[in-house]
Amino acid sequence: MIEIQFPDGNVRNYPPGTTALAVAQDISEGLARNVLSARFNDQTIEAATALHENGTLQFFTWNDTEGKTAFWHSSAHVLAQAILALYPNAKLTIGPAIENGFYYDVDFGEESISEKDLTAIEQKFLEFARQKFEFQMRTASKAEALAYYQEKNNPFKVELIENLEDGTISFCDHADFTDLCRGGHIPHTGFIKAVKLLNVAGAYWRGDETKPQLTRVYGISFPKQKELKEYLNLLEEAKKRDHRKLGKSLELFTFSQKVGQGLPLWLPKGTALRERLENFLKKAQKKAGYEQVISPHIGNKELYMTSGHYEKYGADSFQPIETPAEGETFLLKPMNCPHHCEIYKNRPWSYKDLPKRYAEFGTVYRYEQSGELHGLTRVRGFTQDDAHIFCTPDQLDQEFKKVIDLVLYVFKSLGFEDFVAQVSLRDPENPEKYIGSNDNWDKAEQAIVNAAQEKGLNYVIETGEAAFYGPKLDFMVRDALNRKWQLGTIQVDYNLPERFDLTYKGADNEMHRPVMIHRAPFGSMERFVAILLEHTGGNFPLWLTPEQVIVLCVSEKHKKYAEKVLNELENNEIRALLDDRNETIGKKIREAEMSKFPYMIILGEKEATEDVVSIRKHQQGDLGSMELGAFVSLIQNEIASTISTFEA
Amino acid sequence: MIEIQFPDGNVRNYPPGTTALAVAQDISEGLARNVLSARFNDQTIEAATALHENGTLQFFTWNDTEGKTAFWHSSAHVLAQAILALYPNAKLTIGPAIENGFYYDVDFGEESISEKDLTAIEQKFLEFARQKFEFQMRTASKAEALAYYQEKNNPFKVELIENLEDGTISFCDHADFTDLCRGGHIPHTGFIKAVKLLNVAGAYWRGDETKPQLTRVYGISFPKQKELKEYLNLLEEAKKRDHRKLGKSLELFTFSQKVGQGLPLWLPKGTALRERLENFLKKAQKKAGYEQVISPHIGNKELYMTSGHYEKYGADSFQPIETPAEGETFLLKPMNCPHHCEIYKNRPWSYKDLPKRYAEFGTVYRYEQSGELHGLTRVRGFTQDDAHIFCTPDQLDQEFKKVIDLVLYVFKSLGFEDFVAQVSLRDPENPEKYIGSNDNWDKAEQAIVNAAQEKGLNYVIETGEAAFYGPKLDFMVRDALNRKWQLGTIQVDYNLPERFDLTYKGADNEMHRPVMIHRAPFGSMERFVAILLEHTGGNFPLWLTPEQVIVLCVSEKHKKYAEKVLNELENNEIRALLDDRNETIGKKIREAEMSKFPYMIILGEKEATEDVVSIRKHQQGDLGSMELGAFVSLIQNEIASTISTFEA
Repeated sequence: MIEIQFPDGNVRNYPPGTTALAVAQDISEGLARNVLSARFNDQTIEAATALHENGTLQFFTWNDTEGKTAFWHSSAHVLAQAILALYPNAKLTIGPAIENGFYYDVDFGEESISEKDLTAIEQKFLEFARQKFEFQMRTASKAEALAYYQEKNNPFKVELIENLEDGTISFCDHADFTDLCRGGHIPHTGFIKAVKLLNVAGAYWRGDETKPQLTRVYGISFPKQKELKEYLNLLEEAKKRDHRKLGKSLELFTFSQKVGQGLPLWLPKGTALRERLENFLKKAQKKAGYEQVISPHIGNKELYMTSGHYEKYGADSFQPIETPAEGETFLLKPMNCPHHCEIYKNRPWSYKDLPKRYAEFGTVYRYEQSGELHGLTRVRGFTQDDAHIFCTPDQLDQEFKKVIDLVLYVFKSLGFEDFVAQVSLRDPENPEKYIGSNDNWDKAEQAIVNAAQEKGLNYVIETGEAAFYGPKLDFMVRDALNRKWQLGTIQVDYNLPERFDLTYKGADNEMHRPVMIHRAPFGSMERFVAILLEHTGGNFPLWLTPEQVIVLCVSEKHKKYAEKVLNELENNEIRALLDDRNETIGKKIREAEMSKFPYMIILGEKEATEDVVSIRKHQQGDLGSMELGAFVSLIQNEIASTISTFEA
Repeated sequence: MIEIQFPDGNVRNYPPGTTALAVAQDISEGLARNVLSARFNDQTIEAATALHENGTLQFFTWNDTEGKTAFWHSSAHVLAQAILALYPNAKLTIGPAIENGFYYDVDFGEESISEKDLTAIEQKFLEFARQKFEFQMRTASKAEALAYYQEKNNPFKVELIENLEDGTISFCDHADFTDLCRGGHIPHTGFIKAVKLLNVAGAYWRGDETKPQLTRVYGISFPKQKELKEYLNLLEEAKKRDHRKLGKSLELFTFSQKVGQGLPLWLPKGTALRERLENFLKKAQKKAGYEQVISPHIGNKELYMTSGHYEKYGADSFQPIETPAEGETFLLKPMNCPHHCEIYKNRPWSYKDLPKRYAEFGTVYRYEQSGELHGLTRVRGFTQDDAHIFCTPDQLDQEFKKVIDLVLYVFKSLGFEDFVAQVSLRDPENPEKYIGSNDNWDKAEQAIVNAAQEKGLNYVIETGEAAFYGPKLDFMVRDALNRKWQLGTIQVDYNLPERFDLTYKGADNEMHRPVMIHRAPFGSMERFVAILLEHTGGNFPLWLTPEQVIVLCVSEKHKKYAEKVLNELENNEIRALLDDRNETIGKKIREAEMSKFPYMIILGEKEATEDVVSIRKHQQGDLGSMELGAFVSLIQNEIASTISTFEA
């Protein structure tokens, strides 16, 4: 008998050769029905894999990333099978699972396919899927494997196999279809109840543009038809929420070919939004003991030689700026940290003065190829909500916790409730890769892990993922469409204090090296506004939205009352606009709804006479009429429920 | 008899050949005693000049710029006389009056003089001055003039004369001293009662470094000893108020060789000060209907080709920034206007949408030679409080007045009470020099003059001083040390709307060209802060100053009471710091006085027991003790007396 242990610590005994699926069946029929793949002793296996030794067994269902990967990997096999059934001369290359679905890169030879051909492939896919073909792995010798694809005249698979070691090669068969494959499948094709082939695109073999061009077919599949429908709705919603589209319709930002691609121009409403975000963070940072500074957008080349940025980024970035005389060389600043180091160096410090926390909404410029630019998420100039904390090694623990508090405050105020913290530590096997003493690294890593624990973060540790200059903590946020974004980073740095020869005088009267923390809760204003637009679909939290209220007059007669209302709103610091155009009230309401004003105040004869206001809420409709004071309270309460004062 | 008219319109008749001084004597003995020079029919003349024709006569005294110029020009003659008396081999070159005093460039040959030699020259100067030598002009032929200086072996004067036309050459004699001279003297040397030779410096003949080096002796002279004393005190005060010195001691800004010369780094206190200024202006601008925008600090070369800036500044400015691939070329932005034009172009406009007023605290970069850099007044990167108004030609009048209101509000809030507006109009003789229709220029010039009149500005008109793209109005401000600064500019622009092909649809449904107004009340944040520092000597208006109050504890026992006080101040938005160091109260008071905190709150046993605060005011001392509420009102009243809310 072999001893099988489960993640909950339970142990059961089975005869050698029992399959993972049989073990699942032994636990419960329900589990067995849902098992897609499994992990045995840290190796991904299939449900059908037989177990021959003691070990730890974990089952994966659709609810696990690993389960989805097996599902989509298996779907790629079925896609290939369907393509070959319809295009017998097509040559397969590779077809992996991706974050959302799968693709297969195919050489269609003389033929070409387009999106209109996808429906027929989907039909064939589902026809095969319904037949519940089992996926079966088998090993093959290199010679056999080569012979198989040479016979099929497929140079791509031959090239792949030539790079594999004999003894490690395997195939997966289902029905009459065979593919070179490392494994990781669901039990049979019948699990796949719904599929959608999303689009076709060009792709070079091995991503190399000197090599043959292939056709990439993207798809996604689900265990239930309903889930596909939901996913397609989500895609549709994501298109509607595309920040480039919303940015245009809400008049937040624009681009100009003459100013230059990737260089956003913030329109008045976008600027006001951004300023509100900046002021919100400035206020919290002030409470947390940060000091704002301002540094120029260029720096002498010598600055970046000292910081190491020139060596690292010089060639790939915007090229140096020369002066007409005197032979000076400047660079657009790619980061604010070298400037802040020079600000720190402006005078001597004692340990009693530390920590110093310099904050700047610093605009930096980094070259990106034009093909990689995308709205506000990938730009050539962006403003970081940057700050650098200079502290003693003993203060690191406390400072790290304070930064986490600030980041959590930002996320909460902006409605990002779902996130994971990723702690990146050094690789203990390669200590020579890192700068800074072992002792300091121990302290810093301990500080980060302590802070993550103490603050109750949902965190994962990634060993070996630290930068050479220090460990870090990144926040991965999930948006309303279930997409992941990296937002907010906190990094410890032992490198720049060394390179800039930063010092402070300790209690021992000796000079010491401070530690530096880089941190940016938003990351960049551009990227953050883009993500916030897509997360909220343009319906910003009330405290942040450009205009909170629009006042609509039924007719010109009520303009005087409207101005009284506007004045009272302004006195209560509520941002309101007046629509006194000579249009029907119905049209004004429709347009205000389109423009996503959170609240409308409608003023007609009745309201003016009774000294009340009639209220409509965006996406909810009529809230009836009330006194203006009651409406002001309603707004103030809604704001207070999402944003509180930061308590340092 | 000839007919002499005076500026007040009065007319008197005199025999031909009457001198200007005789006319003054005829008017009053008092006037005659004070006349330094005069203007007759638009020509500067001397008091001794005989009048031979009808004309308009204006007298100048020490209170006129023209009077001072004659005084200092005459002083330069006496300086030259004194130098020759002590250094007979010295060769004179030129010696003009300047804004404050005069200088003479002298070739001392083998000899050299330094500041320690100046006292002896001053003595000799005063010895001559006291003898009341009359200045007497006489004409000379070119041959005579050349012979005179050839005999004296003075190649400089010879060179000057060679470039003059025969018949236009004159000399001025006083005592046994003669100088080549165009005229414009005071009656006699006795008017000069006080002189100070300030320093010696090197200067090249004709400012050309390939030519011989001369010694420049600077001096200043006055009609009264008391005035010299006052002037020297002012110089002393200006040194104390040097913004570079104050900026360092108040920890407002710094420079770093590594970041680059001329690129200020704003320290926390300076940043807070600057933000306060920016928020002050933003608030007023919001009321005045401006909208904030944000544009990048670089622009594609094409942008500046379109605007014309590349052609005009390209070669002398920071050189272009190339990209690693794709062959794009960018430039650091020297001005914000091209970006704002592109923002305007982001969508079509109707006349009903105008004016659009785009404001940005836009940081621009312009190359200056390192020798010309000076603290914050001459830098390579600076932030303009820029805005561009796009309006119809008919709106220009109204818009111009609104901008003047805003500028006057800024000046008043910051304590600049003494200023002159300079209106620059086109040269009517050269209409071809200007872009834009005659009709529009008429409108714009009329709009500016109307606005200046209607707003009751003290203004002067400078015909022919307009830029080629439009007329303008500049504000020349006088600071506490009586120095003039150009602050605040309002410029009309017909050029950029043309170059960027900006349009709006008029009421006639046709497309029209908007007019643009450039304006900046501060000019630049850097220069403004520098001037404000020197104007106030670092004692900023209370609303602006980094910390308004410092709380000093007599001993540690009172810290708890101090924190209660601080908390209450913060609740009333009063910026306060705590000094709870373990130092004597005397030392704390001295240091707080040095750091220019406007108010000190001193808390000891008595204050804690009686729940009051003892107040000291900067430069005034003890104000006694009072309840905290009374102190808060005192602060609030002081702020309200200097800064009001802007009413658009």
